[in-house]
Amino acid sequence: MDVTIIGTGLMARGIGSRVLAGGHDLTVVGKDAQRAEDAAGELAGGGNVRSAAAGDPLNGDVVVLAVYYPDARGAVEQYRDQLSGKVVVDITNPLNETFDGLVVPPDGSAAQELAKLAGDARVVKAFNTTFAGTLAAGEVAGQPLDVLIAGDDEEAKATVAQLARDGGLNPVDVGPLARARELEALGLLHITLQGPLGTEFGSAVKLIS
Amino acid sequence: MDVTIIGTGLMARGIGSRVLAGGHDLTVVGKDAQRAEDAAGELAGGGNVRSAAAGDPLNGDVVVLAVYYPDARGAVEQYRDQLSGKVVVDITNPLNETFDGLVVPPDGSAAQELAKLAGDARVVKAFNTTFAGTLAAGEVAGQPLDVLIAGDDEEAKATVAQLARDGGLNPVDVGPLARARELEALGLLHITLQGPLGTEFGSAVKLIS
Repeated sequence: MDVTIIGTGLMARGIGSRVLAGGHDLTVVGKDAQRAEDAAGELAGGGNVRSAAAGDPLNGDVVVLAVYYPDARGAVEQYRDQLSGKVVVDITNPLNETFDGLVVPPDGSAAQELAKLAGDARVVKAFNTTFAGTLAAGEVAGQPLDVLIAGDDEEAKATVAQLARDGGLNPVDVGPLARARELEALGLLHITLQGPLGTEFGSAVKLIS
Repeated sequence: MDVTIIGTGLMARGIGSRVLAGGHDLTVVGKDAQRAEDAAGELAGGGNVRSAAAGDPLNGDVVVLAVYYPDARGAVEQYRDQLSGKVVVDITNPLNETFDGLVVPPDGSAAQELAKLAGDARVVKAFNTTFAGTLAAGEVAGQPLDVLIAGDDEEAKATVAQLARDGGLNPVDVGPLARARELEALGLLHITLQGPLGTEFGSAVKLIS
C-alpha cells in the first residue's frame, strides 16, 4: 500500500515506523517542509519513505491524520477534495486545555466530527489508544499492541486492520464509527493514568482472554 | 472488613468470591430471601458469609450495589438513610435496551447519578469493566484482573482498593468520580466486543507496561 501521513511529530513517526515495518510505502507531509524531510530521514532506514510539503498532491489510498484535533480539522478542510474516496485515519484524542476532558460533543467524537467535515472520505478511527513510543517499539512487555478500530466502511476498516497486522500489531474491530466515542473516552482515561501510574506514555491497553 | 452485597446474580457472586478470598466477612442481600440464601450457600465454602432479605438493616461499612442500574437506583432510594457515611460501590454499566449505548446523560455517568441520589454515601465506581466469571476465577490468562476505581472520597477509594488487593486483584485508581464516565464507556466497549471477539465474557481489560 501507499500510505500518506500528515504530521511530523512523535505519533507520525510511531505510525510511520509500523507502516514501513509492514513493507508499505510512506509519504510524510508537513506544514514545514524541513520537518517533513527530517521525519522522513529519521524513518528512512525502515523502508521506502519520502517527504512532501503541505499543499502537494496527496499520494496513495490511505491518509493518516497524525496531528492534534484542531489541526486534523484544518487538514480535512484543506484537503477535502483530495480525500474523497480515500481511507482517512483519525488518531486524535480531542483533549481540552486542562487535559481532563474532551472538547467534542459529549454524545459524539472527534472521528464523527471529522467525518462530517470530510465529505466522501472513508473515515476510520484508530491508534488513539496507543502511544507513540509503544508504536515505535511495536510492542509493550513483549506483547503486540492492540489497535482498536472503529468505522462505518468495512473495507476501509479492513485496510487499516491490514496495515496494523502487517506492522506486527493486533487490530481489533470495535464496530461503527459511533464507537469512536468510547475509544476517545478510553484514550482520555489512558492519558490521565500516565502520571499516577508513572508509566510515562509507555503503557498499553490490552484485551486479554 | 464487613462487606454487604446487594444482589444475588453472577456479579454479586463473582465479587463475593473475591471478598471472601481476601478474608473479609460477607452478607448477601436479595429481594428474594431464598435467592440470597442460595447465593450465600454457593459462596459458603470460601469464607464467612450470611444472607439477609431486602429491608433488613445493612451490615458493615462497605455496600456493593451488584444489580442492574435501575435496581441500583431503587436500592439507593430504599436504603438512603442507612447508606449515609458508608462506602457504596457502583458496578453498573447502564446499558440501553439494544445494548449499544448508555441511558445516563452523555456528559455524566451512572455513578454520578447514583451519588446524587445517595446523599451522604461515599460512592465509588469499581468492577464495571470486569466480568463475573473472571472475578470468580480471580484472573485471566494467569494475570490478575485490573479493577479500575473512580471516586471523590480518597479513603473510600482506598477501602475498595484494599478489598480488591486482598482478593488477589490489581486495583487502579483512575481519579475522581467524574472519571466514571470513561469507565462506563470502557465497560460498554468491553461488552460490545464479546460477540465479535468470541470471548464469551471471559476477557479482561489490562493496562500493561
